[in-house]
Amino acid sequence: MVVVMRPGALEEEIAAVAERLRELGFTPHVSRGRERTIVGAIGDRPADVADLGLETLPGVERVVAVRHPFKRVSRAFHPEPTVVRVGGVAFGGDEVVVAAGPCSVESREQILETARAAREAGAVMLRGGAYKPRTSPYSFHGLEEEGLRLLAEAREATGLPVVTEVLSPETVPLVAGYADMLQVGARNMQNYPLLQAVGRVGRPVLLKRGPGATVEEWLLAAEYVLDAGNEEVVLCERGIRTFETATRFTLDLNAVPLLKLWTHLPVVVDPSHGTGSARLVAPMALAAVAAGADGLLVEVHPDPARALSDGAQSLTPGEFAGLMSGLRRVARAVGREVAQPGALPSRR
Amino acid sequence: MVVVMRPGALEEEIAAVAERLRELGFTPHVSRGRERTIVGAIGDRPADVADLGLETLPGVERVVAVRHPFKRVSRAFHPEPTVVRVGGVAFGGDEVVVAAGPCSVESREQILETARAAREAGAVMLRGGAYKPRTSPYSFHGLEEEGLRLLAEAREATGLPVVTEVLSPETVPLVAGYADMLQVGARNMQNYPLLQAVGRVGRPVLLKRGPGATVEEWLLAAEYVLDAGNEEVVLCERGIRTFETATRFTLDLNAVPLLKLWTHLPVVVDPSHGTGSARLVAPMALAAVAAGADGLLVEVHPDPARALSDGAQSLTPGEFAGLMSGLRRVARAVGREVAQPGALPSRR
Amino acid sequence: MVVVMRPGALEEEIAAVAERLRELGFTPHVSRGRERTIVGAIGDRPADVADLGLETLPGVERVVAVRHPFKRVSRAFHPEPTVVRVGGVAFGGDEVVVAAGPCSVESREQILETARAAREAGAVMLRGGAYKPRTSPYSFHGLEEEGLRLLAEAREATGLPVVTEVLSPETVPLVAGYADMLQVGARNMQNYPLLQAVGRVGRPVLLKRGPGATVEEWLLAAEYVLDAGNEEVVLCERGIRTFETATRFTLDLNAVPLLKLWTHLPVVVDPSHGTGSARLVAPMALAAVAAGADGLLVEVHPDPARALSDGAQSLTPGEFAGLMSGLRRVARAVGREVAQPGALPSRR
Amino acid sequence: MVVVMRPGALEEEIAAVAERLRELGFTPHVSRGRERTIVGAIGDRPADVADLGLETLPGVERVVAVRHPFKRVSRAFHPEPTVVRVGGVAFGGDEVVVAAGPCSVESREQILETARAAREAGAVMLRGGAYKPRTSPYSFHGLEEEGLRLLAEAREATGLPVVTEVLSPETVPLVAGYADMLQVGARNMQNYPLLQAVGRVGRPVLLKRGPGATVEEWLLAAEYVLDAGNEEVVLCERGIRTFETATRFTLDLNAVPLLKLWTHLPVVVDPSHGTGSARLVAPMALAAVAAGADGLLVEVHPDPARALSDGAQSLTPGEFAGLMSGLRRVARAVGREVAQPGALPSRR
Repeated sequence: MVVVMRPGALEEEIAAVAERLRELGFTPHVSRGRERTIVGAIGDRPADVADLGLETLPGVERVVAVRHPFKRVSRAFHPEPTVVRVGGVAFGGDEVVVAAGPCSVESREQILETARAAREAGAVMLRGGAYKPRTSPYSFHGLEEEGLRLLAEAREATGLPVVTEVLSPETVPLVAGYADMLQVGARNMQNYPLLQAVGRVGRPVLLKRGPGATVEEWLLAAEYVLDAGNEEVVLCERGIRTFETATRFTLDLNAVPLLKLWTHLPVVVDPSHGTGSARLVAPMALAAVAAGADGLLVEVHPDPARALSDGAQSLTPGEFAGLMSGLRRVARAVGREVAQPGALPSRR
Repeated sequence: MVVVMRPGALEEEIAAVAERLRELGFTPHVSRGRERTIVGAIGDRPADVADLGLETLPGVERVVAVRHPFKRVSRAFHPEPTVVRVGGVAFGGDEVVVAAGPCSVESREQILETARAAREAGAVMLRGGAYKPRTSPYSFHGLEEEGLRLLAEAREATGLPVVTEVLSPETVPLVAGYADMLQVGARNMQNYPLLQAVGRVGRPVLLKRGPGATVEEWLLAAEYVLDAGNEEVVLCERGIRTFETATRFTLDLNAVPLLKLWTHLPVVVDPSHGTGSARLVAPMALAAVAAGADGLLVEVHPDPARALSDGAQSLTPGEFAGLMSGLRRVARAVGREVAQPGALPSRR
Repeated sequence: MVVVMRPGALEEEIAAVAERLRELGFTPHVSRGRERTIVGAIGDRPADVADLGLETLPGVERVVAVRHPFKRVSRAFHPEPTVVRVGGVAFGGDEVVVAAGPCSVESREQILETARAAREAGAVMLRGGAYKPRTSPYSFHGLEEEGLRLLAEAREATGLPVVTEVLSPETVPLVAGYADMLQVGARNMQNYPLLQAVGRVGRPVLLKRGPGATVEEWLLAAEYVLDAGNEEVVLCERGIRTFETATRFTLDLNAVPLLKLWTHLPVVVDPSHGTGSARLVAPMALAAVAAGADGLLVEVHPDPARALSDGAQSLTPGEFAGLMSGLRRVARAVGREVAQPGALPSRR
Repeated sequence: MVVVMRPGALEEEIAAVAERLRELGFTPHVSRGRERTIVGAIGDRPADVADLGLETLPGVERVVAVRHPFKRVSRAFHPEPTVVRVGGVAFGGDEVVVAAGPCSVESREQILETARAAREAGAVMLRGGAYKPRTSPYSFHGLEEEGLRLLAEAREATGLPVVTEVLSPETVPLVAGYADMLQVGARNMQNYPLLQAVGRVGRPVLLKRGPGATVEEWLLAAEYVLDAGNEEVVLCERGIRTFETATRFTLDLNAVPLLKLWTHLPVVVDPSHGTGSARLVAPMALAAVAAGADGLLVEVHPDPARALSDGAQSLTPGEFAGLMSGLRRVARAVGREVAQPGALPSRR
């Protein structure tokens, strides 16, 4: 970090800053310009500069962080991309992975029909919510464990591995008992007990970006999971909160190539939440893959106008199949292929 | 809600929208203009319009919500302000309530010294973190139960009731065993299992606004707590995420008078997090009370430059005492008084 | 628009709202629910609801706009896409148009070298600033009319039509004397005298989105140009201001397919300003075309580390050539071609 | 600035960065940590780091600015506060200055009635728009020169000096012929030809913050006016664009005490635009003064529900009088007085 002193700061003020930096384990370097002095601090410890209170020392104008505060997720120290495997699916390799399914599991028929149609169109993974975090207490909150059972049944029927959201540390073992990959949702990106719990369980994690979180904060959330012992983390961009209200969120595709520079973890995109509107999902899905995303999460529902949640942003199976064929062309244009589902499980 | 049809929408498309609204329990009203038709939906059920998928019906241009989706927290249905009592302290009455203390409980000496200084300066409540949600896994995360014990000891010594944060549903009973008021932090504003857990325990709740959350979403989070059976909720504005990076967050004081129109719940402000800088805390604390806030949360530390967290935004006890005397003048200017601490507990 | 009355609003309050709407030229429709009444207003006049002051009438809770306030730019009333022609280049047709060049014209050598390299790599248009709006008064502000002359010389040499920025109404005729297309920059998106001036001159206009402007406000800015008599407007998304500071702006690619639904005007994307970082330009350029953009503006400089402005986001000619070949593949994947430059002008 | 090298950057890459910094007129200081090297650059020239293109040099990870890029407006080099005088009114002194009036001048009666009521209630300055920048081309755009004449007549009648907006460089002399203070509106904050034009005319300038502009960019806009020769600049906070849509803008009162640290220029607040709602104006006006604002701009209209613009946020004269009496109490509570209007001009 760099401590910028005010013009006219006293020598003893500069010395006190240097001394405090030494106490904190940094090596201070004082650089004197004609107008003002800056004190650089070199050290190995990633630190949150706001914690240190250096601004409160006399003569200090401001403190500027110069390094990323994350470590295990950093590409600087782990140049090779990480490949996260879920069933037969590999995130972060050459192939683009598409997970599809309804926002919420609503019934046996709905999830089986959607899973079959998704597989048919080329999805290699099934998404669907059994525990739904909802802005309003009066909205549909999911079928809970029954929803997990139905997801598992849909996996049996289609061979597609399942990703589903987990909302609290104490339900992590239950959800991990049914699901192949655990989703930490956008609202829980900084729910640290939950991050630690999914960090200790033997399941890959899909970590959605919080809509008010910077890329740096998001990577620090991933750092929690890695630090707890689980290196199988896939990051999912799903839109941030901005002043633009014509779309539900602003899908931050800049984050995709940026993350490729900063981290070795795979990055996928959710254009359904990132736009909030079915008519925008397909073009933004193509854009995400063109930008370098390793995969997509797409909401598909057999009858969006009768969905119990997120109908406005769900594709019909037919629309999804159309998207998949466009996607194959764009993936090839950027030197990749869209992953194909394996053979259907044989009837037992 | 209002469904706006596209110019040239067909009669059968309009009829299908009206029919679907009836299925959903609304009474549709069709209004035909020269250029386009809109279908209003009147009903008692608060609904999240994005869930309903009406935009996916043929001929629909967009769907606009016209009502607030909250109910129990609404001033429209509960015109009298709610007063929340914590020990001898009343939030939402005539007096302005000031809670002060360190970001984190760090040691017995630190918390006792701060509590005494805070009380001396006029604080009526002690704040301090025992379980700290931190952006980085490498930051100080609090003394946990030992921190709770020290807070209780500080309460014994000063008579100040204690507010402290709770991070997960399963620690709610433990924290409630020590604290007088449970804080749900900004990162957990949409942690619904936690909101439900604090809704079921017999303790007042301080609900901080998420930095990426609208006022409407914040009130829906409060609605969860009320819906779970706990009506003793105090809302705390603590700054939102904006493009302005000169301050840590943008303190949204507009929200204070807006909440007074929309809800009966008390509203307090945290100028420490809302600015991130000790030099800005006092003026923004005065501004908050001038805007109508029912109280303040202020970070105070005996030695901010050596704090283990949030040093940059912590006041010294001396600075805090200066703030309190300015605050008494501003409170009187807007027709209120600053609540005074009671007598010191007698030695046992 | 819809006027939402408070619960318990009096009959005379409802009547007064209806009466005021009639005065304003709307036809009011009163819909009574069990809890509250709403008054819909149907009319042909696009209106800014904030102007009308209806919220200040007794009994009114809030006023909600239901229609877009724009008209001439709207796809609802002009379903066919508009094709804007600049020299031999067509924006909004089947081909993807790429304009390239330096942020600022710095010297004869620099602009000629860049123009030749851009044409060589496949750009069909030359961009470059002669009048530069700069955040700081101490930055380089462009070569002004000399810069315009150099741009015209580069056009002679390469055959590429030129787009360059105009900063004030009084310089519109001068700039229009040299340039083929006039750029209204992001900072001037709501400079209405300038919009009217470019609306009255016979040159196509490139209208950049203001970094703090919604899509609706941007379209209203375009409406000014059309309303002044010029229908040849191309919209350019170049990133918006958000809390994310890891990139200079957040490129809002959601706006591309959204604009395709809302307006008949062509839409291009500037990934150089939209990311602020040369390493992110190529993936975001591909993403823009995958999302449906009709073209791109790309900053290219022979020696970015020695550019007088925007060096951090400029590609070298070699990097640009690499981008162009990727772009051709992605354009084809979405059913388009990248426009090719015509034959070099013969020496006179 | 500080150039952060990537881990493993080569010695020749570090040397090339140092060399390039020397070319740019900086003195480089290389600091080597165990993991990475940073190169600090000390120099007198304020520079926009994005211009320099240092990120494009091999081995560079990122470039971080450590100094403010402004100079003439900086408190660091001009510690005494500047007092800007307009007629008998002084901005930036001990007294709080209130300017009031309608959004637009609509008629002789309207402006005279409002000016008299504003003066009666204690306003010392008259605001009102003759040239109105409007988001839609179909909204009322002001009476133009006739509006200026009516403002001058209202000044004759009440003795209140007049502040009004100027939209383009070529109308600066005309507006300066009638007005006592020239307002540069939020949409024009980065209209540099306009900033230079008001910098060359002998009139104080009210510079509103752009809703998408950081405090640093706003101060750089003021720097343009000072650099052009006019030091009489008053800054006006009027709300920024955020994701919160319950209010028209988010009034950033943090900016008030922050500006007091960073600049010597006076700071006023416009709670009418900053909230967009008449019911929120009074509390936010009090808050602004409690936060340290040197004055206020308040929209007052004799009949807000019939205003031609901004009715929703305009106070009636009676509401304004109520605000003024509260304001006197809050100003005193923070050690100031509200400026009082002088004697009425005698009839000629």
